[in-house]
Amino acid sequence: MKIDLNCDLGEAFGNYSFGGDQQIIPLITSANIACGFHAGDENVINGTVKLAKDNNVGIGAHPGLPDLQGFGRRNMDMTLDEIYNLVIYQLGALQGFCKIHQVNINHVKPHGALYQMGAKNKDIARKIAQAVYDFDSSLVFVGLANSYLISEAQKIGLITASEVFADRRYESNGQLVSRKEKDAVITDTNEALKQVITMVTEQQVVSKDGEVIDLQADTICVHGDGAHALEFVTNIRQQLMKEGVEIQSL
Amino acid sequence: MKIDLNCDLGEAFGNYSFGGDQQIIPLITSANIACGFHAGDENVINGTVKLAKDNNVGIGAHPGLPDLQGFGRRNMDMTLDEIYNLVIYQLGALQGFCKIHQVNINHVKPHGALYQMGAKNKDIARKIAQAVYDFDSSLVFVGLANSYLISEAQKIGLITASEVFADRRYESNGQLVSRKEKDAVITDTNEALKQVITMVTEQQVVSKDGEVIDLQADTICVHGDGAHALEFVTNIRQQLMKEGVEIQSL
Amino acid sequence: MKIDLNCDLGEAFGNYSFGGDQQIIPLITSANIACGFHAGDENVINGTVKLAKDNNVGIGAHPGLPDLQGFGRRNMDMTLDEIYNLVIYQLGALQGFCKIHQVNINHVKPHGALYQMGAKNKDIARKIAQAVYDFDSSLVFVGLANSYLISEAQKIGLITASEVFADRRYESNGQLVSRKEKDAVITDTNEALKQVITMVTEQQVVSKDGEVIDLQADTICVHGDGAHALEFVTNIRQQLMKEGVEIQSL
Amino acid sequence: MKIDLNCDLGEAFGNYSFGGDQQIIPLITSANIACGFHAGDENVINGTVKLAKDNNVGIGAHPGLPDLQGFGRRNMDMTLDEIYNLVIYQLGALQGFCKIHQVNINHVKPHGALYQMGAKNKDIARKIAQAVYDFDSSLVFVGLANSYLISEAQKIGLITASEVFADRRYESNGQLVSRKEKDAVITDTNEALKQVITMVTEQQVVSKDGEVIDLQADTICVHGDGAHALEFVTNIRQQLMKEGVEIQSL
Repeated sequence: MKIDLNCDLGEAFGNYSFGGDQQIIPLITSANIACGFHAGDENVINGTVKLAKDNNVGIGAHPGLPDLQGFGRRNMDMTLDEIYNLVIYQLGALQGFCKIHQVNINHVKPHGALYQMGAKNKDIARKIAQAVYDFDSSLVFVGLANSYLISEAQKIGLITASEVFADRRYESNGQLVSRKEKDAVITDTNEALKQVITMVTEQQVVSKDGEVIDLQADTICVHGDGAHALEFVTNIRQQLMKEGVEIQSL
Repeated sequence: MKIDLNCDLGEAFGNYSFGGDQQIIPLITSANIACGFHAGDENVINGTVKLAKDNNVGIGAHPGLPDLQGFGRRNMDMTLDEIYNLVIYQLGALQGFCKIHQVNINHVKPHGALYQMGAKNKDIARKIAQAVYDFDSSLVFVGLANSYLISEAQKIGLITASEVFADRRYESNGQLVSRKEKDAVITDTNEALKQVITMVTEQQVVSKDGEVIDLQADTICVHGDGAHALEFVTNIRQQLMKEGVEIQSL
Repeated sequence: MKIDLNCDLGEAFGNYSFGGDQQIIPLITSANIACGFHAGDENVINGTVKLAKDNNVGIGAHPGLPDLQGFGRRNMDMTLDEIYNLVIYQLGALQGFCKIHQVNINHVKPHGALYQMGAKNKDIARKIAQAVYDFDSSLVFVGLANSYLISEAQKIGLITASEVFADRRYESNGQLVSRKEKDAVITDTNEALKQVITMVTEQQVVSKDGEVIDLQADTICVHGDGAHALEFVTNIRQQLMKEGVEIQSL
Repeated sequence: MKIDLNCDLGEAFGNYSFGGDQQIIPLITSANIACGFHAGDENVINGTVKLAKDNNVGIGAHPGLPDLQGFGRRNMDMTLDEIYNLVIYQLGALQGFCKIHQVNINHVKPHGALYQMGAKNKDIARKIAQAVYDFDSSLVFVGLANSYLISEAQKIGLITASEVFADRRYESNGQLVSRKEKDAVITDTNEALKQVITMVTEQQVVSKDGEVIDLQADTICVHGDGAHALEFVTNIRQQLMKEGVEIQSL
């Protein structure tokens, strides 16, 4: 058994810092690097690619909507061609920095609203995946487990990695409980740890309604910001290793 | 004898059109494509790369300062690292679209204030050239003839193309007469045509003070916008061909 | 009988021009001036306020979504507070230029996606109207006839002006036929002229399904860009005057 | 004797926080509120105006260059008209929020590169001051003591407030030692406290070369971010009160 731990990095911008990239990076195996639309700028990207390389972490593109103010979290009504092009642009921009640092992009994980839009809308999922495939068909495509992101990317021919969340509750249909609902987030650390272990070792999760559902778990999303983030990730790592799960990059 | 004709393309943005890309492209041999900072966006870039490919025109990156409002024409006081990174980012972004259209970037020509800053400042010229070299050492670097852009790029090991202007007057030191001066631009078409032929066939130009100065001419900058732009470029082409000059891409 | 003719102005940005503001302004009575979010910038606004003042045209704010690339036409999933604040910001910014030119803002008309979102969503309509009321309760609020924009603004206590479109077809419920449908736009000039006269003189319109529906018509939306825009507006003016309708500002 | 303590506030943007506005505001008497160009956005401005009102602190506009990435600290080569218009736009935008919160703008202090450009360039200083005067001639204009910002604003007829820095060293000509030099900043707290007391009580400062120079001190610039910022401001307040200096808004 093995699992990947991924985290969004390089989400600073200009004079603004964000998250604790330096602190979280030794604990993860894959870095999703913001590409300048929802966050990140060319200087941040340069430093983040170097940081990921120095820590031997898998490098991924983390393309988002063109909405810095909204941090790419506000749905926007875009055409499929606009979505395709913004993915290509951001992959290319990140690739530029990978070239000068002589590393490769390993994976792509859409960000925020783009991720949610793709998870729920088949056409959008397909278009995002098509852009990734056209750019480089060997890239691993990371998306929400059981969502259109995974099924459409597979149809196109991409290798996929199903993402699961340690601290989010699931609906019985396999989707995440919306953040607009009260019980969307698991705040009890032990409950979250138990959920993540079950997901990784049994490829199952208990939904908020008590049903056991199947869920492929290739990579766990963790966060570098927030008060207890580092402690929580450290706990997850320890539990996984105790269970004999190997933590390795995609 | 041979010469290249280059033109800035893809300088539209969103709902805003700019220039007559469709009209000028059959008349030129190299397209400098805006990369999204001073102009252009991912949708414009996509269309422009396709247009250049379809017309068999050499594709170049045209990186600029992060100033859409000022069209990249306002000098900004940036650090050398900021300059390096913005070149990498924009080269990468354009490269993304070249990948999906299965074409290559041939050359790089900095835009507007970035071009002027590099022409006059040795450190900036060197940093721009270093970014281009690190990204792809086989790219042709286009810069103002007799400027730091050319000399520094050559020191770094890049192939260079010295750019001349048909309709701009020159100082006796080989620099362009500043646009802030009255006689910066040659408005008489015959005078401009005569200047360009002398530059291409004799590698010389007569300065505004009447001195004959040496000037390497590898590529001529032409424009697709403006009332008589197309007519003027057509005239240049005819004159050059009459003189037995071959018009071909860098 | 009287009617206002309104047009969106000041939608240029930086180096990009847009529309024929100089040509259309003598033909209209109200100018909706872009405020810098979907289009316009501080230099454009300054020139446009001066133009409107010189032509004795009613000045209105035309606030939009923060999406220059999409020209404010892409729906964005914003909170009500975000919507409120972006209206206040843009009204204030325009007011700055009105102060230095010693003119007043007469009206407010939301732009593009913000207008559509407000027309269809009661809460959004109310929030936009609340922002306008809090900023200046004497402003005239321009919105789609028969939509939430009008009804919510009236509830709040604003004076409203119901906007009608000469060249758009209507559903039997009074809404505009979506632009995604084939017959959304009336391309025949005579048909459009007939529709606008009926709307103004009888406050009615025939829907695409042949039903006669009531429709208050206080102001007609006209456009300054497009091949036949000026001719069409000139025709509308002539027809209205022939019918004895007075064309005057809100 | 009396003095004002001013601090830049509202410099967050979207998802990015900045500075400790909540912590510093009880210690100051004037808030310079970012207006959306170098920092701040409409949501941040709204919250900051409310915060300033609730704390009974003087509200000022803090307009900057249109350079979010550079936090308005990079000089840009702008025309005087561009500078004039960006000041008007930002003053208006802030005024919008002051209207809805029923407070007034008291003062204006240019930000970062705009402040430095105005301090050193007479024409720029005059244009900034002219914009402020045209917008509202009763506003207090805050600028670097002994600089063009002060002299030009006075010529135009504005009330001015000369700003001094507790922790910056001065040249013998009254200018600040450039941050590019080693000894630009006073790192010893006692030395800084001594300097500020001398400036306030004697309107003098000892330059880095040991000369005693005259310096009007109407307001002291303090900062809310940085490890010891709050402690330092608290110390300044205590020392000033001990010397019998009244701390009050402009």
